[in-house]
Amino acid sequence: MKYGVMRPGHVQIRVLDLDEAVRHYCDLMGMIEMDRDDQGRVYLKAWTEVDKYSVVLKESDEAGMDFMAFKVVSEDVLDTLRHKLVDYGVAVTDLPADELKDCGRRVRFTAPTGHQFELFASKLQTGKWGINKVNPEAWPRGLQGMAVTRFDHCLLYGPDVPGTTRLFQEVLGFDLGERVITPDDSQTLIGSFLTVGMKAHDVAFIEHAEPGKFHHASFFLETWEDVLRAADLISMTDTPIDIGPTRHGLTNGRTIYFFDPSGNRSEVFANGNYHYPDHEPVTWTADQLGKAIFYHDRVLNERFLTVLS
Amino acid sequence: MKYGVMRPGHVQIRVLDLDEAVRHYCDLMGMIEMDRDDQGRVYLKAWTEVDKYSVVLKESDEAGMDFMAFKVVSEDVLDTLRHKLVDYGVAVTDLPADELKDCGRRVRFTAPTGHQFELFASKLQTGKWGINKVNPEAWPRGLQGMAVTRFDHCLLYGPDVPGTTRLFQEVLGFDLGERVITPDDSQTLIGSFLTVGMKAHDVAFIEHAEPGKFHHASFFLETWEDVLRAADLISMTDTPIDIGPTRHGLTNGRTIYFFDPSGNRSEVFANGNYHYPDHEPVTWTADQLGKAIFYHDRVLNERFLTVLS
Amino acid sequence: MKYGVMRPGHVQIRVLDLDEAVRHYCDLMGMIEMDRDDQGRVYLKAWTEVDKYSVVLKESDEAGMDFMAFKVVSEDVLDTLRHKLVDYGVAVTDLPADELKDCGRRVRFTAPTGHQFELFASKLQTGKWGINKVNPEAWPRGLQGMAVTRFDHCLLYGPDVPGTTRLFQEVLGFDLGERVITPDDSQTLIGSFLTVGMKAHDVAFIEHAEPGKFHHASFFLETWEDVLRAADLISMTDTPIDIGPTRHGLTNGRTIYFFDPSGNRSEVFANGNYHYPDHEPVTWTADQLGKAIFYHDRVLNERFLTVLS
Amino acid sequence: MKYGVMRPGHVQIRVLDLDEAVRHYCDLMGMIEMDRDDQGRVYLKAWTEVDKYSVVLKESDEAGMDFMAFKVVSEDVLDTLRHKLVDYGVAVTDLPADELKDCGRRVRFTAPTGHQFELFASKLQTGKWGINKVNPEAWPRGLQGMAVTRFDHCLLYGPDVPGTTRLFQEVLGFDLGERVITPDDSQTLIGSFLTVGMKAHDVAFIEHAEPGKFHHASFFLETWEDVLRAADLISMTDTPIDIGPTRHGLTNGRTIYFFDPSGNRSEVFANGNYHYPDHEPVTWTADQLGKAIFYHDRVLNERFLTVLS
Repeated sequence: MKYGVMRPGHVQIRVLDLDEAVRHYCDLMGMIEMDRDDQGRVYLKAWTEVDKYSVVLKESDEAGMDFMAFKVVSEDVLDTLRHKLVDYGVAVTDLPADELKDCGRRVRFTAPTGHQFELFASKLQTGKWGINKVNPEAWPRGLQGMAVTRFDHCLLYGPDVPGTTRLFQEVLGFDLGERVITPDDSQTLIGSFLTVGMKAHDVAFIEHAEPGKFHHASFFLETWEDVLRAADLISMTDTPIDIGPTRHGLTNGRTIYFFDPSGNRSEVFANGNYHYPDHEPVTWTADQLGKAIFYHDRVLNERFLTVLS
Repeated sequence: MKYGVMRPGHVQIRVLDLDEAVRHYCDLMGMIEMDRDDQGRVYLKAWTEVDKYSVVLKESDEAGMDFMAFKVVSEDVLDTLRHKLVDYGVAVTDLPADELKDCGRRVRFTAPTGHQFELFASKLQTGKWGINKVNPEAWPRGLQGMAVTRFDHCLLYGPDVPGTTRLFQEVLGFDLGERVITPDDSQTLIGSFLTVGMKAHDVAFIEHAEPGKFHHASFFLETWEDVLRAADLISMTDTPIDIGPTRHGLTNGRTIYFFDPSGNRSEVFANGNYHYPDHEPVTWTADQLGKAIFYHDRVLNERFLTVLS
Repeated sequence: MKYGVMRPGHVQIRVLDLDEAVRHYCDLMGMIEMDRDDQGRVYLKAWTEVDKYSVVLKESDEAGMDFMAFKVVSEDVLDTLRHKLVDYGVAVTDLPADELKDCGRRVRFTAPTGHQFELFASKLQTGKWGINKVNPEAWPRGLQGMAVTRFDHCLLYGPDVPGTTRLFQEVLGFDLGERVITPDDSQTLIGSFLTVGMKAHDVAFIEHAEPGKFHHASFFLETWEDVLRAADLISMTDTPIDIGPTRHGLTNGRTIYFFDPSGNRSEVFANGNYHYPDHEPVTWTADQLGKAIFYHDRVLNERFLTVLS
Repeated sequence: MKYGVMRPGHVQIRVLDLDEAVRHYCDLMGMIEMDRDDQGRVYLKAWTEVDKYSVVLKESDEAGMDFMAFKVVSEDVLDTLRHKLVDYGVAVTDLPADELKDCGRRVRFTAPTGHQFELFASKLQTGKWGINKVNPEAWPRGLQGMAVTRFDHCLLYGPDVPGTTRLFQEVLGFDLGERVITPDDSQTLIGSFLTVGMKAHDVAFIEHAEPGKFHHASFFLETWEDVLRAADLISMTDTPIDIGPTRHGLTNGRTIYFFDPSGNRSEVFANGNYHYPDHEPVTWTADQLGKAIFYHDRVLNERFLTVLS
């Protein structure tokens, strides 16, 4: 949290059918619908999150990610980071408060990979869902399906991962927690796992010719047992699976990938590496990319390579 | 245990290189080498087994299974079952005591699927490995790798699964715990999971044109966490993986498949259904075979179809 | 299953308030209410059981166990075992079919420990709850609370454990799976864990001066994670806890003990030892009883010694 | 990490017998001995830690904690924090580099609770133990016992928890992640769980009349399964147990407490709450302290109240 960026705050995901999507993210994954707006967008939270929502679903003709946002510690920090972006040569767009319901003003910019990111400092805090503020129980009864605990990160594909990484490091204070480099002398960065706290990653990028591609949005579970339960629910609901249950080599997460009805990939995972600023990046070489991504199979399945615009 | 057959007693597996095989079954899977004989065969046990060994490794030019044996409760029962086999029209071969070290006489026969099976009543009991007879600790320290707890069952491929199933039921007192039938009116049995105790299966058969094929030998773990640990060890040791960690639809086991250095498939798994004699067979239809075998992926991977002679 | 006894079939538990008891066994423990009768008794099943019910709750002024029953494989076996009991000098009472709803005739007798046991061969089979007969999912959605999978065993206190053990062995074909003996030369049996299948115990007895005491009825869970979840639910519902989560030394189960609103102790547990007829009994000495019962604390808590009439 | 404090860096623990202590922290808990110095101190690390050591054992006539240290991001930050401490009215002592082997200079101060703390910026980094720097395996083979992953936090008893909390917040930039307050109108802080990253706590204090008391040093495990394994090992090694396996209400960790041969309490735990700077403190009231500390038993055992000087 070097420069005041705290965590992933929300992601807006485009879906082809809103009702089907709500069933996926709520009934199957266990998020809670918190609100809708006059654009028809649906606001969802995971139960441990204190802010009102972390996922915004928007109906569209094409699946994919509209934008991902990070919450910063204060409006002052938001101003500072806005200036730093502009000074760095990044164009910013100011979005007014309440363009997203109950969210303060947002500062939007496009990374070299072609993805839209936002910073914001304020969002209505409704507290953890389903437990008391004082003397809280360990978890709420009444959660659905996978009972994901929080929106964790996104994995995104696009060009110029090195430039995007520098932007996140120098302007926003992210650390390079883990990375994939080419095995040649150039050690070119082709996979960048960036973190702004102790997590193995808050956002990750893989080098890809086409800009702005969306690989997945990821949500945190508590245990490997929960990953199995998620896998079982995927099967029971005829949800298309990508891969898993398995482990990542990079980040060490225990994971499963699957698809929402629009084709957006979802991940749920548990455990994984932690990061501190004095840690050297965990490094994998591209010739070991299969094992880096899917530690057990040690090859990339073809589906993994599919990304959405 | 209707007619006195207790459990799988041992399996003799052919391997191309004995040292590599010992590393696989002992260093990786956690079995304990108990003895060798003058044929060069190696005798292994898993730690919870009271008999001296359950796996016999034999060096050969071709991988696969030589025979699988069941232990019966007494020499009298062994006589009775020998007679029943003969009366049923099954040719039997008598093997003398100590043809396998510290094992009593064995009665061998060939099932319609082409596999060799044996019955025996006596084997030297060395007790559970690494814990005291009195006031035993929960588990022994010093186990290697996956620390498998017991040899559990084999899955075998061959012709005439219905006839083989009848033989095991009528002569040996097995129950049909779980099954795969064709979805047409004939409801032909193409997969048969036979049990002689409370386990979901002690031996299983899949219909296959060629006789005597070996799919895998399976070993029991305690937990889903152990399946992950097994998967990690598979990757760390560059062991070829087949599929998993995943769950079976049939039997409900939590499982992973991988290969020994000779190409024999090994399974380790945890949990799963239990059986009693008044249970109707758990039934899957062949059109759902993918989900029946691999509950999460819901398709058979190509490797699954590979079997050894 | 030497003489045709299969498994624990049901237990009738006396409760002080029926509604409170139903909340305990159904809302908290996850059993399913299947029926009530004109005596006001409530019939419950756990989801993996194929018979219609395994627990019968009866309102009474005094908590405790009325009787525990074992299911045998056929009416013929029931006749045979009835004769064997009489020949052994045990008085039997015949209860007509449907005295318990949808249950066949029962043969009741009293063990030397003072507990009433029953044998029966027939009960309406409703199948596993919540999953299809063909191509079943791995588990049903909609289970409540701890989602126990089956009624597993009872632990009972009373005099003459050696005599009771002989009766169960010689007449009913149980094995002594695990035991506690005095550390002196007499090696007197003071704890007897009897099994009629592969489980570590189907019924257990502890030597105690007063006859007919009820320690607990036990239910099976799938995993240690489920034991934690049970513990959390115990706390959330202000249910009195006895001890746990912990492990038993005897049987090796992963367990927690707690009380229903009438003061009857319930256990839920996962994993544990398996048994075969050629296994010597797992033996603990009475001077290690604390570790034998509660493997981690290695002392008996005072509450453990409380038993109900 | 508001003011540049990263994490707990080390704790120096006094032990009555060094060899016994090494067996406890290494053979049982799975730390790795890295070095010894001419004072006879032993330096230990847990395998995921990048710094050379995190625990220092020192032989003494009296058990307890000598000091706990936090690592800061740079020598400049160390200077700044030193000045802030002095300005806040806290006396500091400067310890030269290499007073602890391979550690830079340390700034020591005493908190109002009577405990000695240190700040330092530099320590030799030996990297994670047992895995490669590039393309690392998921975990190292060869770990002993509980295989703890990192030194996590200390719980300390002493007077003036409110003042100590303010010092950690205002001078060192810690957040109050969780807290216990009196249930009266004064809402006096009697339990303070302070964090400087995303963990539920990096150090915690309980109000206590006598200063400088040591409750426990805590180490992180990966899973609830590991907590069971730890409990089993505690029993196998005749290690005195305090309580567990259980869950904390505060922090939600899955935990077990036990004692080293000198009487110092150790904790190993897994999972637990995460914290961000915009989170209100998780709050428990003192009348619910039993449940706050031991979520399942809901009472404090007497042993919990024992603390060392």
